[in-house]
Amino acid sequence: MLTFVGLGLYDERSITVEGREAIADADRVFAEFYTSRLAGATLEELAAYHGAEIETRDRAGVEGDPEPILEAAAAGDAAFLTAGDTMISTTHVDLRLRADERGIDTEIVHGTTAGSAAASLTGLQNYRFGKATTLPFPYAHGGDGVPASVVETIETNRSRGLHTLVYLDIKVGLGPDGREPGREEYMTADRAAALLREELDALGVAVARAGSPAPVVEADRLSALADRTFGEPLHLLVVPGDLHVIEREALAALAGAPEGALPKPV
Amino acid sequence: MLTFVGLGLYDERSITVEGREAIADADRVFAEFYTSRLAGATLEELAAYHGAEIETRDRAGVEGDPEPILEAAAAGDAAFLTAGDTMISTTHVDLRLRADERGIDTEIVHGTTAGSAAASLTGLQNYRFGKATTLPFPYAHGGDGVPASVVETIETNRSRGLHTLVYLDIKVGLGPDGREPGREEYMTADRAAALLREELDALGVAVARAGSPAPVVEADRLSALADRTFGEPLHLLVVPGDLHVIEREALAALAGAPEGALPKPV
Repeated sequence: MLTFVGLGLYDERSITVEGREAIADADRVFAEFYTSRLAGATLEELAAYHGAEIETRDRAGVEGDPEPILEAAAAGDAAFLTAGDTMISTTHVDLRLRADERGIDTEIVHGTTAGSAAASLTGLQNYRFGKATTLPFPYAHGGDGVPASVVETIETNRSRGLHTLVYLDIKVGLGPDGREPGREEYMTADRAAALLREELDALGVAVARAGSPAPVVEADRLSALADRTFGEPLHLLVVPGDLHVIEREALAALAGAPEGALPKPV
Repeated sequence: MLTFVGLGLYDERSITVEGREAIADADRVFAEFYTSRLAGATLEELAAYHGAEIETRDRAGVEGDPEPILEAAAAGDAAFLTAGDTMISTTHVDLRLRADERGIDTEIVHGTTAGSAAASLTGLQNYRFGKATTLPFPYAHGGDGVPASVVETIETNRSRGLHTLVYLDIKVGLGPDGREPGREEYMTADRAAALLREELDALGVAVARAGSPAPVVEADRLSALADRTFGEPLHLLVVPGDLHVIEREALAALAGAPEGALPKPV
């Protein structure tokens, strides 16, 4: 059996009770933290909390050499841990398909996600979000500024009145010159706002440390957000579309949006 | 303090560890189950699991008379529980704004959601979903069949190659003739497929009991899904857009999609 467990948003207490039990029941526990990571807990804290040895795998160890994970799952109960929900990355789906091909049962234990937190923390309504996008570091997409596809996603959503969740690039073990073990870089919401303001002069909402006990949520023009700092990672940026009355009220009361930065409600 | 706690997807073990601790720390615990509910746990099971008295409020008790909840939050620690994540409904945001106005601190403890599960269970990539929509019972939107806005959302997403998550109507305490205490009705994925097939002849994915130990995930033409049954609620329906190679493979291997029902990969 191979159980994919989403660890949730922030630290060792973000996991569900069901996920905790799945880890306790597993003979071997694997994890990958290159697609995302828990900002509020180290690997050691996580292992101590669960009383389990956690074997971390880098990209090469999951995608290039999944054999040890599959063997553990064929021989007993293996758990595969990821930050947020599981299956967020194609990597995880690929691993599940390989297990399925070999006749290994798979199970999924869901985790809390940035996608849902972006709505619940900002007061923007979940069903009024369009397609999400990811803003990469300029060196990671081989150009300056913002890829055209990111701007197009935001603009297309806005033309339909919809909000856009902009995931911010995470680089673990990779740098401008390729593989760099030990390197970690997280795009901040202020840097993202600075990049995007060159393309559109819009309202933005910075969300820092979603799922932590003290998340920061600040709404203002992108140009104003670009001049602030929001502390430790992980950060998200939301670019709202049209605002309903209560969404507008939430951004003003709960995210400190100045009146002048808010469009009229629809 | 008013802590909004998302109970997660399915039963009493779907909550996060952090959420469980928030309930244990609360002086009074309120809940509403009219916007959604836990299909895998009764109120009594939930209360027994947490060793807490849980005071359920109907729509009138949250929206019309929030005073007792706010007073409990002003006098001590109150928790407000909802299925899935919290803040999914405008009702919750409104309650948070009222607390904020009165100077009551609020906190959010996230829960796992159908939105994320729809991606992780089907193998469809999260960032390739467009705007979600809700399919109401015909009597609830005052017409026959499917509201034009639902079809338009699906078609617009598909024209961009994007998947659509279709939430299925939940009616608790409401019926065709208005208020009906004790009545509960959940739209099933087969009924949704039957309604939608009149509008578009597309691939669909039925997801039943997301977050449970044995979720059902079946992909086929909407007309084929309309002739099946998927068991107990809650159900979801996904209408995929373009499929990447691995998404196509996942629908075939993990959701039993017949080859003829799958479009060519892009």
